[in-house]
Amino acid sequence: MKRTELNELGEFGLIKEIQNKTTLYHPDSLKGIGDDAAVIDAGDKVKVVTTDMLLEGVHFDLSYVPIKHLGYKSVIVNISDIAAMNAIPKQITVNIGLSNRFSKEAIDALYEGIFTACEQYKVDLVGGDTTSSRSGLVISITAIGEAKTEEITYRNGAQDKDIVCVTGDLGGAYVGLQILEREKQEYLANPKMQPKLDQYEYVVMRQLKPEARMDIVHEFRDLNIRPTAMIDISDGLASELMHIGRSSGLGVAIFEDKIPVEKAMLETLTSEFEQLSPTTCALNGGEDYELLFTISQQDFEKIKTHKDISFIGYMDKKIEGIKLQTRAEQVVDIQAQGWVHFKEGL
Amino acid sequence: MKRTELNELGEFGLIKEIQNKTTLYHPDSLKGIGDDAAVIDAGDKVKVVTTDMLLEGVHFDLSYVPIKHLGYKSVIVNISDIAAMNAIPKQITVNIGLSNRFSKEAIDALYEGIFTACEQYKVDLVGGDTTSSRSGLVISITAIGEAKTEEITYRNGAQDKDIVCVTGDLGGAYVGLQILEREKQEYLANPKMQPKLDQYEYVVMRQLKPEARMDIVHEFRDLNIRPTAMIDISDGLASELMHIGRSSGLGVAIFEDKIPVEKAMLETLTSEFEQLSPTTCALNGGEDYELLFTISQQDFEKIKTHKDISFIGYMDKKIEGIKLQTRAEQVVDIQAQGWVHFKEGL
Repeated sequence: MKRTELNELGEFGLIKEIQNKTTLYHPDSLKGIGDDAAVIDAGDKVKVVTTDMLLEGVHFDLSYVPIKHLGYKSVIVNISDIAAMNAIPKQITVNIGLSNRFSKEAIDALYEGIFTACEQYKVDLVGGDTTSSRSGLVISITAIGEAKTEEITYRNGAQDKDIVCVTGDLGGAYVGLQILEREKQEYLANPKMQPKLDQYEYVVMRQLKPEARMDIVHEFRDLNIRPTAMIDISDGLASELMHIGRSSGLGVAIFEDKIPVEKAMLETLTSEFEQLSPTTCALNGGEDYELLFTISQQDFEKIKTHKDISFIGYMDKKIEGIKLQTRAEQVVDIQAQGWVHFKEGL
Repeated sequence: MKRTELNELGEFGLIKEIQNKTTLYHPDSLKGIGDDAAVIDAGDKVKVVTTDMLLEGVHFDLSYVPIKHLGYKSVIVNISDIAAMNAIPKQITVNIGLSNRFSKEAIDALYEGIFTACEQYKVDLVGGDTTSSRSGLVISITAIGEAKTEEITYRNGAQDKDIVCVTGDLGGAYVGLQILEREKQEYLANPKMQPKLDQYEYVVMRQLKPEARMDIVHEFRDLNIRPTAMIDISDGLASELMHIGRSSGLGVAIFEDKIPVEKAMLETLTSEFEQLSPTTCALNGGEDYELLFTISQQDFEKIKTHKDISFIGYMDKKIEGIKLQTRAEQVVDIQAQGWVHFKEGL
């Protein structure tokens, strides 16, 4: 019998295959696989639904991730997907698989993080499943949000000459992960050492306790802006640009000097990881959970002075793929790395 | 620091604690933790949401469960929860964690089972997450259904003197599991042996390929019946009776000779597991995915001749807990075993 290895296919290949085999029987399934969340008709509004699974040893390492932060982050990654649809999160369900390595106190800390996120983002925990696990901790969360039909923002709506915008700063979560991984190795080599994380607090907290940009989603409503396309940055800017570009049938031009990076991250790179360029961290790092979106030129006036939004480029039907104009004014093609767990993790 | 073991608390204890700590911020979260599914307001209808996680080595054993059947069953267990709310399933999301032990062909077979269930029950696969796993296969599914507000049936609505009803027959899935476990042990002792499953087909298929009783949910609509309380039988009749009784604040009287068991199951017990009583299998076996529900006496006329519904007892405010009248006309107290993974699996 034929055996095809999963890494020959990759994550996007597997998702594409599943998508192609899918039949939608109900007209109220307005959008299925292929965006940050599914969209389901609900009378005068729509519900959006997204889900994520986090597995110990693949997505998190409890030797340096406090379990309370893990609970918080596992909710945030789902809320971020709801934000990326320009919708408001309302409910979550939480499935947890636990081995007997975990005490009740550890589970209390996990749920403390989950409840803190619920309170912060006003989300209701309405259901879930707790079960034993023979291996590590498994967390699978589904989030449900709501919006008016006309508010929903898909990946595929970008138009030629739309402006490409990004919230906050990028690459920090990746640099934080490098710090945590290095400290872990040093600790394993010398268990008496005390981790020195204070001076890297900014990047470490970007990794351990990210936020979803619901503030921006609410501002869109206040300013009467509807992004033409939107996605959250979980896999790195390059991968998300590729999704918006391909879905919208357009190329993207990006300027390196416009990509937002935080001073604290640059300092950490300079002092600790000279070999890493901040642009590479922003493009391929992932887990920043900022929003990448496009707006029409007429909406630009409304947000051009916004302190937390950067305008990094534009959509262009004459461009193939993603072109980056470097600080040295060279134009280079950007490849999206995407998701490499199947190769890395196994 | 204090360490409390999870098995001191048990599944129901853990769920109860989580439920007690939960705050609902949104008035449209009509029902949170504590029933077969959450209920969310959606204009002139409601959405119901349920989720289940299946872990290899805890919930299934791929040495005897064909992976296609596993895909099918993982959808069914969620649809069954939607049925138990008297709602119609519409969408599912599917999260899968895979180790590189699995080939693409195995994943295709898993999804073939998932898609077969989707087609059978007219459910749309609208999203999900695929990720690598360092240990075994992890499947986490969320199902969304729909109903009119007044159609929704909770566990807590049973009234004094309501009739307790159950669909289909019980205990078969448990007996099927015993057969499969035994064949596995025999195979491990002698790998050249061929499993002899033909004569046990009924019980084995009850375990491997259960169905959700959507046919009954549709009949309720046709007959204009709304059960006063309903739950699906996933943990065994005793446990589900306890849920309905406690939630409704009533006791339950059950007659052993009314508990439906199938002839093929009795034959398997007689020939293979003399020590097991059919009543014990029905009460504590679980995984039958039949519906347990209560109806008011005036609705009895509408279904009293139904071939696939058994009337096994009645709700009684004068009774404490669950009383079973045996075939020998003794009355015994029934304890619900509930869920024992934490003790068994680890």
